[in-house]
Amino acid sequence: MKMKYDFGMVGLGVMGRNFILNVADNGFTAIGNDLDDEKVNALIEEGGDTKKVNATTDSKTFLDSLSTPRKIMLLVPAGKIVDIVIEGLLPDLDEGDLIIDGGNSFYTDTDRREAYLSKKGINFFGAGVSGGAKGARKGPSIMPGGNREAYQHVKPIFEAVAAKYQGEPCVAYLGPKSAGNYVKMVHNGIEYGLMQLTSEIYDVLKKGASYSNDELHSTFHQWNEGRLQSFLVEITSEIFEQEDDLGDGRLVDQILDKAKQKGTGKWISQNAMDLGIPVPSIDIAVSMREISALKEERIYADDLYDRPEVEQLDKKKIEKLTEEALYFSFIITYAQGLHQLADASKEYGYELDIAEIAKIWRAGCIIRAGLLADITNAFKADPALPNLLLSPTFVEKVQGTVDSARELVAFGAGNGIPLPGLSNSLTYFDAYTSSRLPLNLIQAQRDYFGSHTYERLDRQGIFHTEWEKE
Amino acid sequence: MKMKYDFGMVGLGVMGRNFILNVADNGFTAIGNDLDDEKVNALIEEGGDTKKVNATTDSKTFLDSLSTPRKIMLLVPAGKIVDIVIEGLLPDLDEGDLIIDGGNSFYTDTDRREAYLSKKGINFFGAGVSGGAKGARKGPSIMPGGNREAYQHVKPIFEAVAAKYQGEPCVAYLGPKSAGNYVKMVHNGIEYGLMQLTSEIYDVLKKGASYSNDELHSTFHQWNEGRLQSFLVEITSEIFEQEDDLGDGRLVDQILDKAKQKGTGKWISQNAMDLGIPVPSIDIAVSMREISALKEERIYADDLYDRPEVEQLDKKKIEKLTEEALYFSFIITYAQGLHQLADASKEYGYELDIAEIAKIWRAGCIIRAGLLADITNAFKADPALPNLLLSPTFVEKVQGTVDSARELVAFGAGNGIPLPGLSNSLTYFDAYTSSRLPLNLIQAQRDYFGSHTYERLDRQGIFHTEWEKE
Repeated sequence: MKMKYDFGMVGLGVMGRNFILNVADNGFTAIGNDLDDEKVNALIEEGGDTKKVNATTDSKTFLDSLSTPRKIMLLVPAGKIVDIVIEGLLPDLDEGDLIIDGGNSFYTDTDRREAYLSKKGINFFGAGVSGGAKGARKGPSIMPGGNREAYQHVKPIFEAVAAKYQGEPCVAYLGPKSAGNYVKMVHNGIEYGLMQLTSEIYDVLKKGASYSNDELHSTFHQWNEGRLQSFLVEITSEIFEQEDDLGDGRLVDQILDKAKQKGTGKWISQNAMDLGIPVPSIDIAVSMREISALKEERIYADDLYDRPEVEQLDKKKIEKLTEEALYFSFIITYAQGLHQLADASKEYGYELDIAEIAKIWRAGCIIRAGLLADITNAFKADPALPNLLLSPTFVEKVQGTVDSARELVAFGAGNGIPLPGLSNSLTYFDAYTSSRLPLNLIQAQRDYFGSHTYERLDRQGIFHTEWEKE
Repeated sequence: MKMKYDFGMVGLGVMGRNFILNVADNGFTAIGNDLDDEKVNALIEEGGDTKKVNATTDSKTFLDSLSTPRKIMLLVPAGKIVDIVIEGLLPDLDEGDLIIDGGNSFYTDTDRREAYLSKKGINFFGAGVSGGAKGARKGPSIMPGGNREAYQHVKPIFEAVAAKYQGEPCVAYLGPKSAGNYVKMVHNGIEYGLMQLTSEIYDVLKKGASYSNDELHSTFHQWNEGRLQSFLVEITSEIFEQEDDLGDGRLVDQILDKAKQKGTGKWISQNAMDLGIPVPSIDIAVSMREISALKEERIYADDLYDRPEVEQLDKKKIEKLTEEALYFSFIITYAQGLHQLADASKEYGYELDIAEIAKIWRAGCIIRAGLLADITNAFKADPALPNLLLSPTFVEKVQGTVDSARELVAFGAGNGIPLPGLSNSLTYFDAYTSSRLPLNLIQAQRDYFGSHTYERLDRQGIFHTEWEKE
């Protein structure tokens, strides 16, 4: 009888190769498939034992080698390639087989594929994988969505390969259809926000108190030992230490300040607007990458304008301000992303369990952070919490740090240091916690020029006024 | 011989009725068409002379009564209704006829309709109309896009009905396909931004120096006599004067602070992200409307958090700060919208003339402002100006007011008054005029966890580093 493998992987790039080796490390047999000979051979070589990990360029051989129901993961670029791969596999699949798209597919694409394949009896999963190449190899956070029953077939494998947080695997069935891709999209949006915030803190420490790279390293390193503990703070600390192989000094100083975006960062902002959910700390991170890309214009504009001389702050003082402001704005950014998730869950019928999502983000993924344990607890205590800012434990954390955010934003504004992520986190907080906002004026304006009507504070109903004096 | 009318209007709601009456006032004969008897009769009655303005519920009669090529404008709700109306007209149209969609149709819908109808020999125009009901009656700003030659047929009518700025009509052929709808979309995004900014200034004057409605009225009134002269500042001044018919005091104080959005405001932000153009002063206006909608949560959250006591500023001082900050942030908001237009023009082949657009915004439309004359001149002087902030005349205006924006943003941050539009305008300015931004750190982070590579300051090429210490 021919050897059958437990798990199949289509696409043997870095992520696919690392993920399948991870599967094999955890006692499951696996076979990879890629059109590229080199990648196939590289996996066979690295795997060492073809009874444990094998690979082939031939799709039929690949499919014949899998035990049924087949569990086939795709780690190929999002977009049309996913459809092409699916069409290629389809004729030789059996009813009940599982296809798991591990890429950052847009959630409506996943819904379309799931509907199409379920008619043919194939179970389709969108499963976001976070943790980068290293995460895929050593333990990522996995965010699967699709058919709940079929998930049981792949559950043991995913739980084995996923990152562990205090022994608990960072993977869980999240919901039907595109729930997994949607959650990963929001994860990536939060990631954008947190990265922007760390870059602003770096800027203000450098400009406002002349921090050296060594000081930046040790500051972020020390923060990573405290309540700011997180993957992004940790790697930021390491980045400041990295020597430049091509010159003197530290590498970070030679890196061009044009941050690229792969598109997934803007998706969350665009979709949040469709849902009507405010995520300004994430929106601004997208905008800042766009402004960063205008390097030539920035150089030209810099010459045209005078900038205030930056007041120098005492290091002890700025360290307290930045630590508290970063903690504050991290919380606000998570709050916005999770608010969007809660709303999307109702809108798209995902029935998401926010505590469960925060739980599987505690390790393996890019936005893993000590804070996520607290967030998990907040949503365990109140699964219907409309916004993290309303959780009693978070009221304390936010109230205790907001004053530093105020002071730092004011410092940036006064000294010409752009802190847009921090500002948007602060103004979001100040607006969200205002029972009365000045948007009554906007309603008056809309009614004035467009007869759009308004509501009143003191009585029910829809009103319109003839504003203009004749 | 049967009487033939110069111009036809489908949809006799407030906008359609007012527009067609405007056409008749200017010496053109016109006929309206609506399914609703009442609207048809109302127009006939208001028009007074059916030889000048007539109306009918019957589509055939309507089409038979128009001189050829027929010039038929639609003022019906954007979306499917536009397609339904077009399909209804189509069988009885002749080659060369013009259909002009005057609604806020999404630009891709206009492209689709234009392509579909041009195959049938029908000229389709998307022509945004701004100015509200009053504008439609007395002179709107009209933004038509479509076939340049066919536009000549409707040009005399549009130039006659449009608002005039120092004798020049606020209408011009803007470009092919959806150019007109696109320009109107950006107009509406700028409108969102300016409205948000005025609401913030209102808030800070009230909270930071206890301005009464009378003082607010006179302050905005006085500003409207100066460089802030604009429709929105003018109506804001009038709004503060409006007595409340249903109670004591001023109406503005009784209006619920939940600002609605009709969708067109978010389009510009979503599309700007597709183009990769930063428009954070507009994005945040969308977010603030969304936050305003969360009234119940805001009331609850307000109770949970302490807010700083607001420092009271001297009225002379705050009046200077707010006037300068509002002028500064108005400029930044126009700059962002026009930047998007310039980029969209390349991307979608519109070949827009930005000076011409600023010119037709000088009167009639909601964002009309004294500033637009300066903007027109800036783009006349340099049609390829990548950003308004790079125009020498604007450098002076911006440099002269940015310090007040700094001080006001700092004041809002420190005192818990959310000024997100002002902050985003300031941080956009500070980032756009920074030759070096801290996004080198973001590139380092992306390369660290995702091997996304980076560029360097000191040499060409794409680089990747193995960051992690073993």
